[in-house]
Amino acid sequence: MKKDGNTSSGRDHELEEYVNFLKFQSISAKHANIRETAEYLRDLLRNLGAESSLMETDGHPVVYGNLNLGKERTLLVYNHYDVQPVDPLDEWNHDPFSAEMEGGRIYARGSSDNKGTLMARYFGIKRALDANEIGVNIKFLYEGEEEIGSPSLEKFIEKNRGILKSDAVIMEGSTLGEGGRPIISLGVKGLLYVEIEDEVAKSDMHSSYSAIVPNPAWNIILPLSNLYNGQEVTMPGFYESVRELTEDEEKILESYPFDPDSFSRPFGLKYLKHKGKSDLVRWLFTKPTMNIDGFLSGYVQEGSKTITPRKAMAKLDFRLVPDQDPRKIFALLENQLRSRGFKGKIKPLGMEYPVRTSPVSKLAVAMTESARSVYGKEPIIMINSPGTQPMALFTRNLGIEEAVSAIGVGDQNSRAHVPDESIAVENYFLAIEHTKAFLKSFR
Amino acid sequence: MKKDGNTSSGRDHELEEYVNFLKFQSISAKHANIRETAEYLRDLLRNLGAESSLMETDGHPVVYGNLNLGKERTLLVYNHYDVQPVDPLDEWNHDPFSAEMEGGRIYARGSSDNKGTLMARYFGIKRALDANEIGVNIKFLYEGEEEIGSPSLEKFIEKNRGILKSDAVIMEGSTLGEGGRPIISLGVKGLLYVEIEDEVAKSDMHSSYSAIVPNPAWNIILPLSNLYNGQEVTMPGFYESVRELTEDEEKILESYPFDPDSFSRPFGLKYLKHKGKSDLVRWLFTKPTMNIDGFLSGYVQEGSKTITPRKAMAKLDFRLVPDQDPRKIFALLENQLRSRGFKGKIKPLGMEYPVRTSPVSKLAVAMTESARSVYGKEPIIMINSPGTQPMALFTRNLGIEEAVSAIGVGDQNSRAHVPDESIAVENYFLAIEHTKAFLKSFR
Repeated sequence: MKKDGNTSSGRDHELEEYVNFLKFQSISAKHANIRETAEYLRDLLRNLGAESSLMETDGHPVVYGNLNLGKERTLLVYNHYDVQPVDPLDEWNHDPFSAEMEGGRIYARGSSDNKGTLMARYFGIKRALDANEIGVNIKFLYEGEEEIGSPSLEKFIEKNRGILKSDAVIMEGSTLGEGGRPIISLGVKGLLYVEIEDEVAKSDMHSSYSAIVPNPAWNIILPLSNLYNGQEVTMPGFYESVRELTEDEEKILESYPFDPDSFSRPFGLKYLKHKGKSDLVRWLFTKPTMNIDGFLSGYVQEGSKTITPRKAMAKLDFRLVPDQDPRKIFALLENQLRSRGFKGKIKPLGMEYPVRTSPVSKLAVAMTESARSVYGKEPIIMINSPGTQPMALFTRNLGIEEAVSAIGVGDQNSRAHVPDESIAVENYFLAIEHTKAFLKSFR
Repeated sequence: MKKDGNTSSGRDHELEEYVNFLKFQSISAKHANIRETAEYLRDLLRNLGAESSLMETDGHPVVYGNLNLGKERTLLVYNHYDVQPVDPLDEWNHDPFSAEMEGGRIYARGSSDNKGTLMARYFGIKRALDANEIGVNIKFLYEGEEEIGSPSLEKFIEKNRGILKSDAVIMEGSTLGEGGRPIISLGVKGLLYVEIEDEVAKSDMHSSYSAIVPNPAWNIILPLSNLYNGQEVTMPGFYESVRELTEDEEKILESYPFDPDSFSRPFGLKYLKHKGKSDLVRWLFTKPTMNIDGFLSGYVQEGSKTITPRKAMAKLDFRLVPDQDPRKIFALLENQLRSRGFKGKIKPLGMEYPVRTSPVSKLAVAMTESARSVYGKEPIIMINSPGTQPMALFTRNLGIEEAVSAIGVGDQNSRAHVPDESIAVENYFLAIEHTKAFLKSFR
């Protein structure tokens, strides 16, 4: 019997393979289980009939696949097989790598971001092939370093322009929004991730000396606090290259559904920084940010210990909008910190350019229409996602004109990057079907 | 034969009793051997002719003694009989409770801090009594919880104002400095220890939301950064109650020996916040501080994780100078943070008042002159120590006007609180002689 996704044995197989994939502990920040995961995916692509191989980078390998069907145009499918770290582990109610099922959901680190989406697209393409309803060649690029900021992807793309040449790209990272409506993002915010560290001594010092010894936590806090006011970044020149919205984009922004209460509830969030849907949506999609991801210095356990710490460390991320340039923003930051006397290390850990694709492009239109038909709901469109993917490496560096982020398995309860990440199993199968329907109309 | 400290049999006895005392394993953090040690000291004070008893507190008992000689004024002698834990035990080259002698030194936990000092003072008083060269009554307060932060001392003093009433107090904690010069501290800096915490959500959030969700690290950093400029505290009113130095105090400050290189070397410290001995000494002794002891928020391990943290926590200490009031400074801090919109918790974890006794007080003069004569060296005088002891419990709460920290047996190699604590045996006898000489002139 032919293994077809529309039969129940086909669905069993599609689910089983997803579970297999989730059990790989492919945490890129810890360099864990990376190669085994990549080899597993290479074999999967070969099963589909694609030429596939692991391609080495300066970091983790890329899984590349080429399904040449002799069509005129080529679609590049980008996903990543790495996942975020799992700490704090004690806040998980389900083992992060056992793929436990409960109440119609499957729990695992990566279940939503990005293993579920990768696997759903894979089986959507398989169904399209089996039904012979596919009008483009497909290239696959599965990355292993997305969650650490894709440090090797740019060089990889530069080196492999020829084999990656395509006409359109679908990125990872889409999810389902309010009411199960599929989200289509026509771009991404960019990112600059920076680690700042100051070490003033080899050992902590008794704080009775704090009048004369430098404090590395203050050394970081004081210059940083001049660059942000709680709402806006106050570095001169930071907003200089921000692009204005077109009329189509303004309409998309206005139609974006956002309910502050349903947004806040899953996080147990006490309040939002802005009032009213319209302001919140405008800030979320159109404003660049300066966020503190982490800060550590000195004694942080219970009670009091009177020391001046020997060292302090801060992690920051900037979410950038078109046409801000992360390299220029890094230079701006470095310049600001140095001019305020900061002597420690300032290390960029990740840079991504922002992207915004036209809402009237072929790709955007085919994706929107197939989503509407499969889900029976109006898709939620974003002029660009508030988050980041290395979309610009495809548009900017490969010269691909059409890029969207769409077809995802996560929903609003999926908790990507935090404990108890999960998806509804049914959404996995809908994403498979959406992929198939999209391929039927996209040329 | 009269047992006199000036005979060799007297010295033998003085050393033997010190060794007996060192063998008690009176580790307050482990509640070990506490009562036996206290009873031993009570009996010792009775042998001296003092009325003595164990007085209960909420924690370990205080050994109280009263040697009423019918004199006009009374000196209170404060010491503690508890010691720090001994771990890591495998880093000791001498058993911590055997009081082994080697190369003219005696090795034991507590040999310097504080059993040596307690016992040297005891025998100094005994010698003065035997010689009938003593002009004050003496009260003894031996605490059993100093090494765990004196949690019961304030309440004990409040409850026993009557029996503790005295005119002057000598505190524990002094040592010998560079070149064996005795250190006399005429006061202490005060302390305010504060923990600040902000929790905005129940879970961390993806940092793509950072344009609209509050960041608890920024919530702490931004208002804090307005209160300190890297050198001085910029809270309005912070310096209001700072007492000016007298001419005598200015002279003491100028004569304080301080070598920036020998200070920095043990810490591997890269630089100091001020240049030149004179400025460094002025900042160290006369300036109140605002120190960050610890800061924790979000992701602080290797690599990058893009979250807006749910929570941030900072620990701060303020070292205060006379006549700053830790309660008022706390109110000031709270007020400043609240007026800048800070909504989280602000908890005081410790408060101690600063003390500075006049260098021309009877106590300071008698202590300085006796030190100069016994050691044959110029004592190192501090207008107040840069660190903190609960001296204000005696000056402020008991109304004692003259307080110094002086007469100690430890030196710069004594390693208080760490393995192989020791003192030079000769310094034990010098401290006995210093006590005797001090009592000859103090009235």
